[in-house]
Amino acid sequence: MRIILDAFGGDNAPLAALEGARLAADKLPGLKLILAGRQEEMERCAQAHRIALDGFDFLEAPHVFKMEMEPTTILKENSDTSMAAGLKALAEGKGDAFISAGSTGALLVGATLFVKRIRGVRRAAIAAVLPTPKRPFLLLDSGANTECTAEMLENFALLGSVYMQKVVGVERPEVALVNIGTEENKGGALRQEAFARLKANGRIHFTGNIEARELPGGNCDVAVADGFTGNIVLKLFEGLSSMLLGLIKGVFTKNPITMLGAALVSKGLRGIKKQMDYSEYGGAPLLGINGIVIKAHGSSNAKAIFNAVRQAQRCAEQRVVETIKENLQP
Amino acid sequence: MRIILDAFGGDNAPLAALEGARLAADKLPGLKLILAGRQEEMERCAQAHRIALDGFDFLEAPHVFKMEMEPTTILKENSDTSMAAGLKALAEGKGDAFISAGSTGALLVGATLFVKRIRGVRRAAIAAVLPTPKRPFLLLDSGANTECTAEMLENFALLGSVYMQKVVGVERPEVALVNIGTEENKGGALRQEAFARLKANGRIHFTGNIEARELPGGNCDVAVADGFTGNIVLKLFEGLSSMLLGLIKGVFTKNPITMLGAALVSKGLRGIKKQMDYSEYGGAPLLGINGIVIKAHGSSNAKAIFNAVRQAQRCAEQRVVETIKENLQP
Repeated sequence: MRIILDAFGGDNAPLAALEGARLAADKLPGLKLILAGRQEEMERCAQAHRIALDGFDFLEAPHVFKMEMEPTTILKENSDTSMAAGLKALAEGKGDAFISAGSTGALLVGATLFVKRIRGVRRAAIAAVLPTPKRPFLLLDSGANTECTAEMLENFALLGSVYMQKVVGVERPEVALVNIGTEENKGGALRQEAFARLKANGRIHFTGNIEARELPGGNCDVAVADGFTGNIVLKLFEGLSSMLLGLIKGVFTKNPITMLGAALVSKGLRGIKKQMDYSEYGGAPLLGINGIVIKAHGSSNAKAIFNAVRQAQRCAEQRVVETIKENLQP
Repeated sequence: MRIILDAFGGDNAPLAALEGARLAADKLPGLKLILAGRQEEMERCAQAHRIALDGFDFLEAPHVFKMEMEPTTILKENSDTSMAAGLKALAEGKGDAFISAGSTGALLVGATLFVKRIRGVRRAAIAAVLPTPKRPFLLLDSGANTECTAEMLENFALLGSVYMQKVVGVERPEVALVNIGTEENKGGALRQEAFARLKANGRIHFTGNIEARELPGGNCDVAVADGFTGNIVLKLFEGLSSMLLGLIKGVFTKNPITMLGAALVSKGLRGIKKQMDYSEYGGAPLLGINGIVIKAHGSSNAKAIFNAVRQAQRCAEQRVVETIKENLQP
């Protein structure tokens, strides 16, 4: 199994990528990691932080795709970046999966144009895994497609079902449509049509509409939404969780007495932090692409990169792309 | 000042309404409260709970508008409900404001048809006040209009600005458009056009797009969204806050040691709970209606009803409806 890693994507590059790759190589057997980017800079960084690079392959790429760059420039002006090089290598069969913590937009454009979509998939979706105390759920599309058709939403439901079944091991994933009410006629024409399609599709275990209030309760395995709505849900989930956990932290670090209070509940609080930690589940797969492409969070640390590598390995082992193809056949 | 209260709306009716009304009558001077509903049942409930009813007026209405009823039936079949009676009394000038914790949909239909919209307002919006540690912000539309035009969003921005200025006392309310990126070209045609309109409107202090991640940080006074997006934000805010605060509570109530820990930080935790408590700000005003109509939360307790009465009083004192009319003139 060969996994290509964009060593220069994300806020903590290349250090987090190197540390994460080391962890993965040491812990996950049968893995060949290919690091895309400037090899010389990686070697300097590895030396400074005493990270062993043995066993890694390198894919030289002189430039880095920066967050502020226009996504479509990955095709031409910025096709010599580590992200573009990794995607092209994946398309050429030089690896079994590609991971990047860089620009989501560029990764999507690059994956769609270099690696291509699976036949029958109208648009690829970003599938974010969101944590809840009960079970994680997959939210898609979480930002790739601002405007969607009902057919696209039906597609997303299928893609998400296969992922949750194969990679997370949910036998019969429950699919819900993110909406503003549980009744069939809610949410305007788009959701009404999507509701009918999801209900009629025998390959999808559709449980109906889900209101945003119920999402943190872990009441579905796959939450289907257009990319605008999904992105709002994803970012509010992140922003509100981090704000509330920050408030709690503030209460505990106020003075010696509150710090003693914190010590008495530290185990439980660590449990909550772990429960609500996105990076536990790796990154967000780009589903519908004819290859395994994982978007790691921009602020990924070594552990998040490690988890993304493990996730990519599992996607490849479980033949996620092939299973999606089978499920899309009429 | 006469405030009409639907005594039979919400989960805790009529008890919460009676307790809240008593609190308001005792604490807020110069107030005449008019309780809509079955007077006999209110008297029985008041007697059972030793609530004095002196000073209240009654508006007899034999029926209750139930949550599962179709909103439009408030106009005919259910026009003898306490909600309909209250709205009609407001329209006839028998009160200065109306409050209900009943069905949002019916309240909106009834307000629009009985009380009517302000001239120049295309659609009324539900304006929810959301708490953040920094400052509360007004989210509108938070569910009245699933589909919106850019002109409606511009309207909402004006309505929200007047409310925040007059009722909350923000001198120059900062208005942001809820979007999936901060750049001007994000969010499809609707938000692009809305961005241009908001930017060009001299009566609105527009600060640009805001991502959902930034909303809990309290970085705007008015967050403008279509009713679908707003409803998703509102309900996820509620659901995620209550889930996280529930997790924290679970950690503390685990055993005697963790309960001691809780005791040591109890003051700070109460502070967080208060900071994140919606009912502190009253209910959600229906803005754009030619009268003051407040939707209290369905689960309102006495304190929430009291706060909604105080909010209604302030809306009337500050002549919110008249100021909106002035601001809508070309």
